[in-house]
Amino acid sequence: MGLPKEVLEEKIRKFVEEDVGQGDITSEITVPSGTIVDAEVVVKESGVVAGVKESLIMLRNLQVEALVEDGSRVERKTIVMKITGDARTLLSIERTLLNLLTRMSGIATMTNRLVNKVRRAGHKTRIACTRKVAPGLLYFDKRAVMLGGGDTHRLHMDDLVLIKDNHLAVGGKIADTVKTARNTVSFSKKIEIEVTDARKALDAAKAGADIVMLDNFTPKQAKETISLLKKGGLRNKVLIEASGRITEQNILDYAGTGVDILSLGELTSSTKTLDMSLEFVNVRQRGSSKS
Amino acid sequence: MGLPKEVLEEKIRKFVEEDVGQGDITSEITVPSGTIVDAEVVVKESGVVAGVKESLIMLRNLQVEALVEDGSRVERKTIVMKITGDARTLLSIERTLLNLLTRMSGIATMTNRLVNKVRRAGHKTRIACTRKVAPGLLYFDKRAVMLGGGDTHRLHMDDLVLIKDNHLAVGGKIADTVKTARNTVSFSKKIEIEVTDARKALDAAKAGADIVMLDNFTPKQAKETISLLKKGGLRNKVLIEASGRITEQNILDYAGTGVDILSLGELTSSTKTLDMSLEFVNVRQRGSSKS
Amino acid sequence: MGLPKEVLEEKIRKFVEEDVGQGDITSEITVPSGTIVDAEVVVKESGVVAGVKESLIMLRNLQVEALVEDGSRVERKTIVMKITGDARTLLSIERTLLNLLTRMSGIATMTNRLVNKVRRAGHKTRIACTRKVAPGLLYFDKRAVMLGGGDTHRLHMDDLVLIKDNHLAVGGKIADTVKTARNTVSFSKKIEIEVTDARKALDAAKAGADIVMLDNFTPKQAKETISLLKKGGLRNKVLIEASGRITEQNILDYAGTGVDILSLGELTSSTKTLDMSLEFVNVRQRGSSKS
Amino acid sequence: MGLPKEVLEEKIRKFVEEDVGQGDITSEITVPSGTIVDAEVVVKESGVVAGVKESLIMLRNLQVEALVEDGSRVERKTIVMKITGDARTLLSIERTLLNLLTRMSGIATMTNRLVNKVRRAGHKTRIACTRKVAPGLLYFDKRAVMLGGGDTHRLHMDDLVLIKDNHLAVGGKIADTVKTARNTVSFSKKIEIEVTDARKALDAAKAGADIVMLDNFTPKQAKETISLLKKGGLRNKVLIEASGRITEQNILDYAGTGVDILSLGELTSSTKTLDMSLEFVNVRQRGSSKS
Amino acid sequence: MGLPKEVLEEKIRKFVEEDVGQGDITSEITVPSGTIVDAEVVVKESGVVAGVKESLIMLRNLQVEALVEDGSRVERKTIVMKITGDARTLLSIERTLLNLLTRMSGIATMTNRLVNKVRRAGHKTRIACTRKVAPGLLYFDKRAVMLGGGDTHRLHMDDLVLIKDNHLAVGGKIADTVKTARNTVSFSKKIEIEVTDARKALDAAKAGADIVMLDNFTPKQAKETISLLKKGGLRNKVLIEASGRITEQNILDYAGTGVDILSLGELTSSTKTLDMSLEFVNVRQRGSSKS
Amino acid sequence: MGLPKEVLEEKIRKFVEEDVGQGDITSEITVPSGTIVDAEVVVKESGVVAGVKESLIMLRNLQVEALVEDGSRVERKTIVMKITGDARTLLSIERTLLNLLTRMSGIATMTNRLVNKVRRAGHKTRIACTRKVAPGLLYFDKRAVMLGGGDTHRLHMDDLVLIKDNHLAVGGKIADTVKTARNTVSFSKKIEIEVTDARKALDAAKAGADIVMLDNFTPKQAKETISLLKKGGLRNKVLIEASGRITEQNILDYAGTGVDILSLGELTSSTKTLDMSLEFVNVRQRGSSKS
Repeated sequence: MGLPKEVLEEKIRKFVEEDVGQGDITSEITVPSGTIVDAEVVVKESGVVAGVKESLIMLRNLQVEALVEDGSRVERKTIVMKITGDARTLLSIERTLLNLLTRMSGIATMTNRLVNKVRRAGHKTRIACTRKVAPGLLYFDKRAVMLGGGDTHRLHMDDLVLIKDNHLAVGGKIADTVKTARNTVSFSKKIEIEVTDARKALDAAKAGADIVMLDNFTPKQAKETISLLKKGGLRNKVLIEASGRITEQNILDYAGTGVDILSLGELTSSTKTLDMSLEFVNVRQRGSSKS
Repeated sequence: MGLPKEVLEEKIRKFVEEDVGQGDITSEITVPSGTIVDAEVVVKESGVVAGVKESLIMLRNLQVEALVEDGSRVERKTIVMKITGDARTLLSIERTLLNLLTRMSGIATMTNRLVNKVRRAGHKTRIACTRKVAPGLLYFDKRAVMLGGGDTHRLHMDDLVLIKDNHLAVGGKIADTVKTARNTVSFSKKIEIEVTDARKALDAAKAGADIVMLDNFTPKQAKETISLLKKGGLRNKVLIEASGRITEQNILDYAGTGVDILSLGELTSSTKTLDMSLEFVNVRQRGSSKS
Repeated sequence: MGLPKEVLEEKIRKFVEEDVGQGDITSEITVPSGTIVDAEVVVKESGVVAGVKESLIMLRNLQVEALVEDGSRVERKTIVMKITGDARTLLSIERTLLNLLTRMSGIATMTNRLVNKVRRAGHKTRIACTRKVAPGLLYFDKRAVMLGGGDTHRLHMDDLVLIKDNHLAVGGKIADTVKTARNTVSFSKKIEIEVTDARKALDAAKAGADIVMLDNFTPKQAKETISLLKKGGLRNKVLIEASGRITEQNILDYAGTGVDILSLGELTSSTKTLDMSLEFVNVRQRGSSKS
Repeated sequence: MGLPKEVLEEKIRKFVEEDVGQGDITSEITVPSGTIVDAEVVVKESGVVAGVKESLIMLRNLQVEALVEDGSRVERKTIVMKITGDARTLLSIERTLLNLLTRMSGIATMTNRLVNKVRRAGHKTRIACTRKVAPGLLYFDKRAVMLGGGDTHRLHMDDLVLIKDNHLAVGGKIADTVKTARNTVSFSKKIEIEVTDARKALDAAKAGADIVMLDNFTPKQAKETISLLKKGGLRNKVLIEASGRITEQNILDYAGTGVDILSLGELTSSTKTLDMSLEFVNVRQRGSSKS
Repeated sequence: MGLPKEVLEEKIRKFVEEDVGQGDITSEITVPSGTIVDAEVVVKESGVVAGVKESLIMLRNLQVEALVEDGSRVERKTIVMKITGDARTLLSIERTLLNLLTRMSGIATMTNRLVNKVRRAGHKTRIACTRKVAPGLLYFDKRAVMLGGGDTHRLHMDDLVLIKDNHLAVGGKIADTVKTARNTVSFSKKIEIEVTDARKALDAAKAGADIVMLDNFTPKQAKETISLLKKGGLRNKVLIEASGRITEQNILDYAGTGVDILSLGELTSSTKTLDMSLEFVNVRQRGSSKS
Repeated sequence: MGLPKEVLEEKIRKFVEEDVGQGDITSEITVPSGTIVDAEVVVKESGVVAGVKESLIMLRNLQVEALVEDGSRVERKTIVMKITGDARTLLSIERTLLNLLTRMSGIATMTNRLVNKVRRAGHKTRIACTRKVAPGLLYFDKRAVMLGGGDTHRLHMDDLVLIKDNHLAVGGKIADTVKTARNTVSFSKKIEIEVTDARKALDAAKAGADIVMLDNFTPKQAKETISLLKKGGLRNKVLIEASGRITEQNILDYAGTGVDILSLGELTSSTKTLDMSLEFVNVRQRGSSKS
């Protein structure tokens, strides 16, 4: 996933617009018109950088050199990008720039840590996010997960049939609901269904679901469910996603059950930014030579 | 702070629009047209609720009764609001609704915990957020801080002159910069300046700054600075804000220094959502009587 | 697919805004303020109606009764909806209303005719549209196809991996490309690939594509490809879509080949509106009783 | 008519935005970052090209050379434009680009065919479209008519007083209505009125209408009406537009009646796209030399 | 001219949004939640009221009774509208409401004064505005002129061909330019041309211009031009507009020349608001009875 | 105050969009495609120029050289900017450009005249505008005041607590209201209160208001109030703003009272544009050399 330049420009313009209000009155007062700066975005703790593509768009009225690619692991003190241009312009977007970069990088970093933990333990299990994103930031949050090595899961409500408890509460049985969905929805969509016990998982797989989501299963329950699916000759016909209760602590227990996907809302809902700062390296007047 | 209905409608429409894509294909398939539900938003851990006002706007095409006011402390299992109406409509915004409510409530809860900690220790120190918000969510993040008992600080870049390191890097001395700002900016604005040692704090206060921000001071340094200001007869002429390095762990040490405001970027940048869920209580067809 | 009310309101507002300019100067001059009309939207040729949901939103400032549901087949002279309210308001949106209703109904009617032709001949083949829609009308065009009994295919570029000639032109072989896609894209997406001969269809199916699109195949070539897939034990592992060259005339030949989906760009790119008109039944002044 | 660059950019951004969703996931997976293509838009049937100006704006982040001017007649296999640039960027807008170009060119082609038919028969009659456009595409549809040699008629509801049956249904007589309109509306507007028989046409002309629209007249009725107008010395005081029932088959019959304008809703409501495709001519990595 | 409700809502939302920033912090602090007011908009000097229709839309979340219709002449102390509802909501839009009402009423008042001056002197000359409006307020400014009895002139650049000095500077002669325009532009448009002397006025009239604009003519020159047009038998074939140099002082001199239209940029570019205030009549808590 | 480029682009695009409608049909007809002009914006009366920054953005698709800086005083016939580029593009925005420049310059000129009058009389009193701006033009109107040497006052409703008559009407006493405000609002805001007599001014100052606004005081009353404040030792604790009744005629009387700020709604509500015109200096075809 990745938006075209003109679409991102519009999203990012709104971020700047909200923060800047009627203008950066501080810089207008303290920074002489025509002041040029060389500045650097520096990472202050190790992690995975995300949001470089978006930053280049936010900084499109300045001169920027990205030294780090989106998705790269970096150490403390790494320079992510070098920026040269009008000081007032840069100061007026400094905070919004860092807010975007540090949030996306924070999400990518956490995702990557979990992915690596699972990989190092020898599992191929995918680590996915959910739709528990910050409102309006679905694109940025999911893209950060992707850059951290995670799976974006649904990109919005129209790209997967995902039947959850509240849908079933309306009345349908699992098998009927899956079959109806298969007959009704476009052939281009997969069908996933959330189940609460092993038996329902089997029903869903038999009915032809593409993906079965084990909701709030313990690792033990997940393992048993997979055994039953194997016995029923159904394991290869479905993907199995486990969701709920999974934490950084117990993630290897879940990965060990043999499920295909582990999804965690926390990747995007309980974020910790990756610390970065914007540092001025050189300040001069337009027209004067670089010191 | 709080936006008029029509302005919020527009912001919230965009949240829904991004998430829903071309429509909630799952509900269209699994939920018969004309299905009516009674549902409840239930809190799953204790905390402070924020986002009720905004939720009422998101739910404006349904019937809603708010049982909890914005800013209230609630216990686990509290019903925040009761919702009745078209099941498909509700399902299509369920996640966006919870994303907004749980983020705002998470921010309010953390803010409130810090405020209470400081109040219980007998301090009047204000707990403020900064501009380190999620991009595009400045309004929602700052309002959540306010509802948690915190101080919103600047609402955007035009409502306070806040002179930081990068402004001073351009060249001005503290006293000159403050004086220029005073002469240039509208009489309706306060002037704040960030300082890195006690001596600069005194310079700023003498020069007539309204607020002096002690950047990355230890509690000891902050205390000494305040002593010096008192000696200089300047303590009552300025507000003192401490920022940087302050955590939930050491916050009482800082509050004990006598500064007026403690500001923490983490209130809005490292958020943990307050867990809530939407539960269906009753499902029926339009026209049928309530069971 | 179907958008929430508030999202549709915004899309439809723009349609009205473009057409109305600075106002309907004719009605302001010729229709006294406070004139109330009863009017009817009448179908002037038989077909399938689509766009009722959207019309109700366009008419939300008037009183409307829909007599026909979206997706219904109607005969000439059927009244689709009755409208009562301010004459100037209705006249100012009459043309935009009819433009939307007659376009969507035209698309639904053509789709439905093809679907019925195929069903009557005993085939289960799905009739799908493509992304060849009018710019900006993707939602309305695809929804009309759905209401006519067709398959919407992709809803935008993010909900299906669809590898076409220009992607392969960049260099990858079919099998490698499919495998890379499977490893890279979210588990929630299907993978489809366009092929130009039977052999490539087999390669794609073996490589694990979910859907294989036979591009510009003759019915004979399509039939042979399916035979080969059956021989290879691959027929049940993939869906087969035929695209290109399919017309209303030869559609049964294609349906007879055993492919699962027939897709036609013409459903949305070469549209003929379904004729309707808005007729005034009664005109009176506000406050006067209905004659 | 023709919109300034910045206004078109916004309209076109929305077309791209709707189609692309959260991104072109296929190209991201199958096309290596930094791939450069040379591509051509090729016409696959003869016709009149329209939409070049708009395409240049859609392609503004790539390098484009237009080989054909808007409004030109082209033969099959003509290259409309050559495009060089980032392959992913081009692939993500390929379909939207072709949707716009082929729709506008289809409209221009049909318009031009009718105009030529009438011109070749020696008539000066103008061929005009109506407001029966695709919702939201009024600008593009009308501009395509203009590029095909047709008359755009009203550009929205504020640039001509056009009194139709539903306006008269509210009660006014033709003569009174025209006079009221003349006294009320700005001097900068023309006044047109739709009539249903010859007598009303005379009334309208006498009352000072600038244009009289003969609604659903047969060619014979139109001819007689013009005779009567001539006898009454009114022919030179009004323009005569015929509308309704006019088709490609009978258009010369209508043109032969001596009316000034023939308007056909079908020009924009029953469109057939002009077939074009985007072909990759050369693919290489950024930095590598062109093969 | 007059926009539909949904289009006006959007324009007016933006006015409110800009002024309110992140919220009316004063009212939130000083006005208890749930406070209800009865308020009145009162005119403080005599004039013509305009903007009532737009005010009703701005106030749509409150209860409003308009006591004065748009375009009415009122005396000092007249109550324009009565408003009841949530005090905070009203206070947050008070200034924007008055800014709109007083600007539109100021323009309507000035327009009406000139129209009346001319009418009382026995002239039928129309008083028109130009496109010299406040940026973004074209609709509101022109509508105010209309409500004051003036002529709106062009509503934007697409509804009249108006050939001015800079167009002619490009090279065309008057007669040729008018003829080209007639052949090229839609039949639905009038053609106006600006001339700088009597001879050019005759050329323009002969060439078939619908309207001739006498630019910066003295009343004497205007009179002579009209004489010449009469002698040439051209007076009844064109409308004559005089523009430039016309002021409230000399307007009767110009009206006396026999021109059809006098246009003054000052009507919308040099505005004086009509003084009004919002007065609170009654304040109470929601639920309490009205005192 | 001053908005970033991308935010201004959006605001200015809307100005152009409204005026241009579906296009500048006059220039398309009269100006050959590819015509290049050299043009100048010339001031036709002396004054202070404002809006250059904004004009550069409006003209960003042309080549522009600004010869005058925003806020400069200029004499009649001064060339403000030289513009070279596509004639049609320039003609399509000529009027909108002049509307913006002449309005902003008119406001700056009037502001500057009052500021100079007060300065020449030896007073330091600030001249401020209010929120009485044209709807939607708050940014442009306030920026023009600033460029004329005035004080912008509040930039929107969230950057100052300003307690007015209608807030007090709800019930609070001055002292209580000020204290509540101080405890509730962010430390980053000043608190201002409007008073109607000297006694209330003292109450407000004692209660800790930052600014006291004397509403509709005569110069004599203002003077007495200041004396009382001095006697009470409160003069240096507050800023004093006088508002209401102040005119260009009596402004020195008010300035002489010793108040700090004089605010006048008329600066932005009763504007007179500064006359300018766009003059074509040279016209040629693209590719031809400059004559």
